[in-house]
Amino acid sequence: MHRCEIITVGTELLLGEILNTNLQFLSQRLAETGIAVERHCTVGDNPARLREAFLSALDRGDIVLLTGGLGPTADDITKEVVCEALELPLVLDELQLSRIEDFFRTRGLAMSESNRKQALVPEGCQVLYNGNGTAPGCWIAKGDKRVALLPGPPGELRPMFQEQLKPLLMPFSSGVILSHYLRTIGIGESRMADLAQDYLDLANPTIAPYAKQGEAFLRVCAAAATEEEAEALCKPIIKKLKEILGFYAYSVDKELEAAVIDCLVEAKKTVAIAESCTGGGIAAKLTQAPGASAVFGWGVVSYSNDCKRALLDVPAYVLERYGAVSAECAFSMAEGIKKRSGADIGLAVTGIAGPGSDGTAKPVGLIYLAATDGETTLEERIETGRGDRGYNRDYATKQALNLLRKLLAKRTEAN
Amino acid sequence: MHRCEIITVGTELLLGEILNTNLQFLSQRLAETGIAVERHCTVGDNPARLREAFLSALDRGDIVLLTGGLGPTADDITKEVVCEALELPLVLDELQLSRIEDFFRTRGLAMSESNRKQALVPEGCQVLYNGNGTAPGCWIAKGDKRVALLPGPPGELRPMFQEQLKPLLMPFSSGVILSHYLRTIGIGESRMADLAQDYLDLANPTIAPYAKQGEAFLRVCAAAATEEEAEALCKPIIKKLKEILGFYAYSVDKELEAAVIDCLVEAKKTVAIAESCTGGGIAAKLTQAPGASAVFGWGVVSYSNDCKRALLDVPAYVLERYGAVSAECAFSMAEGIKKRSGADIGLAVTGIAGPGSDGTAKPVGLIYLAATDGETTLEERIETGRGDRGYNRDYATKQALNLLRKLLAKRTEAN
Repeated sequence: MHRCEIITVGTELLLGEILNTNLQFLSQRLAETGIAVERHCTVGDNPARLREAFLSALDRGDIVLLTGGLGPTADDITKEVVCEALELPLVLDELQLSRIEDFFRTRGLAMSESNRKQALVPEGCQVLYNGNGTAPGCWIAKGDKRVALLPGPPGELRPMFQEQLKPLLMPFSSGVILSHYLRTIGIGESRMADLAQDYLDLANPTIAPYAKQGEAFLRVCAAAATEEEAEALCKPIIKKLKEILGFYAYSVDKELEAAVIDCLVEAKKTVAIAESCTGGGIAAKLTQAPGASAVFGWGVVSYSNDCKRALLDVPAYVLERYGAVSAECAFSMAEGIKKRSGADIGLAVTGIAGPGSDGTAKPVGLIYLAATDGETTLEERIETGRGDRGYNRDYATKQALNLLRKLLAKRTEAN
Repeated sequence: MHRCEIITVGTELLLGEILNTNLQFLSQRLAETGIAVERHCTVGDNPARLREAFLSALDRGDIVLLTGGLGPTADDITKEVVCEALELPLVLDELQLSRIEDFFRTRGLAMSESNRKQALVPEGCQVLYNGNGTAPGCWIAKGDKRVALLPGPPGELRPMFQEQLKPLLMPFSSGVILSHYLRTIGIGESRMADLAQDYLDLANPTIAPYAKQGEAFLRVCAAAATEEEAEALCKPIIKKLKEILGFYAYSVDKELEAAVIDCLVEAKKTVAIAESCTGGGIAAKLTQAPGASAVFGWGVVSYSNDCKRALLDVPAYVLERYGAVSAECAFSMAEGIKKRSGADIGLAVTGIAGPGSDGTAKPVGLIYLAATDGETTLEERIETGRGDRGYNRDYATKQALNLLRKLLAKRTEAN
């Protein structure tokens, strides 16, 4: 099996200013590709220490991946240090230069002279095109060793790895490791694990529970010579786990919003959304999925009572008697947006996201959800007991999307 | 200044199964404590590799922190490997043993024989009590070098660090390191760095440029004996950098949405938002900041033409002649939401987020922004040239918030 080491470069990482998500991303992808990662190392923007770390990694491993330090500024040194250590000259790549020039032109930004530096590449390397920034990546062969340079920003690194570097790594693979995630909502991690108990000791695929804010996943992970064989190992187990977890399991691998859109498309229903405490977050999450426009056309962010009255026809007496954070208001918002829009389903959320209270005696973290299709109406009252604005908004958003799933499945009983 | 290296131990980290948040936590705390972290290293549960990584870290640095591998199972090897490398015997700590026994007794769990192993500690070390698990930590002095062993689970590591290890590290502190971020938008990282050129070689504070999707930051980082002195070093430099960067600099440390809310509050203006391609993302971002309700009450997510006509009064001829993705439609949406809401400013975005086209000849990534206060109207046309839906939505959201800043500053010329 080929041995790989990953070096991430940046003083900001040593200062803890950013979370090093690239390490996890690259490690997962390499594991899937069947390449063993034996070490992670992070050094700052310091040529001597980077050189030492690079040469010792190259000494131990067959493949060294470096990320970061490919930017245009003086403290971006990765390319220069690696080339010097490998005794490779840097040469101007005209194609990269014109791509960088285009990048600035289409954005109407002035190009700095230092950006020209980014068009320099190690002689004889394979250039990895950066569709999302100005720093190209590189794939360098030196004897039987291989070195890859990748940009630090995850939005540039991830597509470059997937589209360009992965195919170059495949000849070094010794089989595949394949993971699927069976995603659940509405059940805790430990209860999910209890239900799946009989499967947690399997050897191949392995089954492991993970908790994620308001959701819980089971990872099903198989090792095999080919992707097809690994899929064949996972498939029957996932089928059984889905049966055990029932309605809690909303998808395999798919995000909640995409799973909800699938449910709407299948039921041939449209939804309109009225939201208060989530501030547009439900609509924003639903429309993250490309197919959203087929099932969603109308959203109102009624952050004020004026807006609730004017755009959602919430009656004045509801606001006066029960207040904006009430089951009555949530229902009235759902009904209002449904009628205005002509959508099949109206979905509404109102609540107190925090950190401060809304000036009433109601607790921070109190959230009301409502969904109605005209025939059936589902309502939920949540009290998170937490003052964390981000958590409360995120939790309300996910529970609202799950309420839509429940309505579509006509699950009128509590779970 | 004392040099520190951090080694995290665990095969699950090399497989990318968990995100290594301990590295960021420890790095931040050490930076605040005035101890320079020079390297991060992660190795798997492999004695030979851990030994090599530990000895080379100890050779370079004054302090080595290791996390993980203190558990009861056979693949937990950190304590054993470190003791062997330091030639220290492991001895049974009766107090730890009784604490571990208590831990299981109070939880009504059976104690495994392997948990006894966790009561073994390096001879002569200072034991760090674990209030949240069974693995004690250790602080080992060996000549002028120091070694700390910490458990891997963040819920055990964090309190142990804060309450017990930090006081032991303080004698090695050389003062505090304090960072501020001067945040800019509308200028690339390299042009920002060019403008700040004269400051990039400063020794204390150091100034370093960072790019972040659609934004660019300058980190101003000072080392001093006290926080007050570090602040005093940063202050005049930040003032000068703000002058140089002018309107591009929108805040020190504050998120864009919070900075925009500050501008609105200061100008005593309210905003209403109509959005299409961002799908609620602008309202969701603005309302992430707790003070949002003072300046924002109305939002419409007009994902369909029906909704644009009904809730925003976009004239049918605009949609027919120019289409939903047009400067005319963006303006009409901004004007419509302003009139309906009675807000001082109407802000609107329409565009093609991708990845697919909207069925017209218009390119994916084409975005129109408009903001109007009745007197002044600002419009912007953006072509990102990218098919990445997430990127396009995020970019449009940030540019829309920046357009609001421009309108409030009455910046009618192009930047």
